[in-house]
Amino acid sequence: KIGVEDGARVPVVRMKVGEVAESTTVVVLPVCEAEKMERQLEEVPWECGNEGEFGVVVAEKGWNRWVVLPGWEPVVGLRRGGVVVAFADAKVLPWKANRWYKEEAILVVADRGRKEVEVDDGFYLVANNGDGNDSYGLKVERGLALKENGVKESLGTVVLVVRPPREETEYQLSDEDWE
Amino acid sequence: KIGVEDGARVPVVRMKVGEVAESTTVVVLPVCEAEKMERQLEEVPWECGNEGEFGVVVAEKGWNRWVVLPGWEPVVGLRRGGVVVAFADAKVLPWKANRWYKEEAILVVADRGRKEVEVDDGFYLVANNGDGNDSYGLKVERGLALKENGVKESLGTVVLVVRPPREETEYQLSDEDWE
Repeated sequence: KIGVEDGARVPVVRMKVGEVAESTTVVVLPVCEAEKMERQLEEVPWECGNEGEFGVVVAEKGWNRWVVLPGWEPVVGLRRGGVVVAFADAKVLPWKANRWYKEEAILVVADRGRKEVEVDDGFYLVANNGDGNDSYGLKVERGLALKENGVKESLGTVVLVVRPPREETEYQLSDEDWE
Repeated sequence: KIGVEDGARVPVVRMKVGEVAESTTVVVLPVCEAEKMERQLEEVPWECGNEGEFGVVVAEKGWNRWVVLPGWEPVVGLRRGGVVVAFADAKVLPWKANRWYKEEAILVVADRGRKEVEVDDGFYLVANNGDGNDSYGLKVERGLALKENGVKESLGTVVLVVRPPREETEYQLSDEDWE
């Protein structure tokens, strides 16, 4: 169900309509808007446990944006420091974007507990300092690019990229859609 | 799937393992602990909307306890003022409790936007002022009992009572379990 795209070490998954649906577990994660600076990213609660038979999510502090995701493996594993960054489109992704990427909102699930830039082909959440045409906020960079710039620490390691649900007929992407 | 118990006007439902699973929609609601006084109930965010293609839950303010419920009809309808009160056991319920009720944690879903005590056989969330052996906090009262005591306003109308998931074999309750 979860595919790895373009040689990336990060799984990219398209959510299906009603998929929150399909697994026996769901995960609730706090959401940070991509336009916010890195400071807000640190303000997002770190600890989000589950309590009791109903799995009530108990965070170390209050937060006002949350998202429910199916219990995908990379997400279930996030115990501390998990965060979802909501991007209005996928231009922030450092891989060759397909045309549909650019038009789509995406969620980037990151682990703030793993800040070190370890893997060349891993993806990392970093502050966007407004170079080029990009606006300030957060963006995603490839490990190699960060290393080449001497950046050893990121804001968190990307563990999953989630694309929005589409209509039934579009579930099956043709091979040529994948690079 | 949702049954009405004991002539009550409030549906009681037992959640199934992985049921958050089974419907195409889920609802995320803020949770209030039953031991907290009515003041905390008012502090729970009132507005919880959904945003964008991923249905990110955006509350008017931060809150640290949330629960994901299947998109049951009485719950989906809650736009403003919806709250879940988590009770350690079902002794707070004003109907003749079966033995298993007493041992079970329950969630009471209430609509704080409907405070008026309208229906005799409706159920309402009220402050527990420590009469009798009960501890302080929140409890559930029948409309008729409140009216008899001249209480016209509650903290909210109960729209659903949720019982915790049980093992497969217990899903089917025998008729005698129901009064």
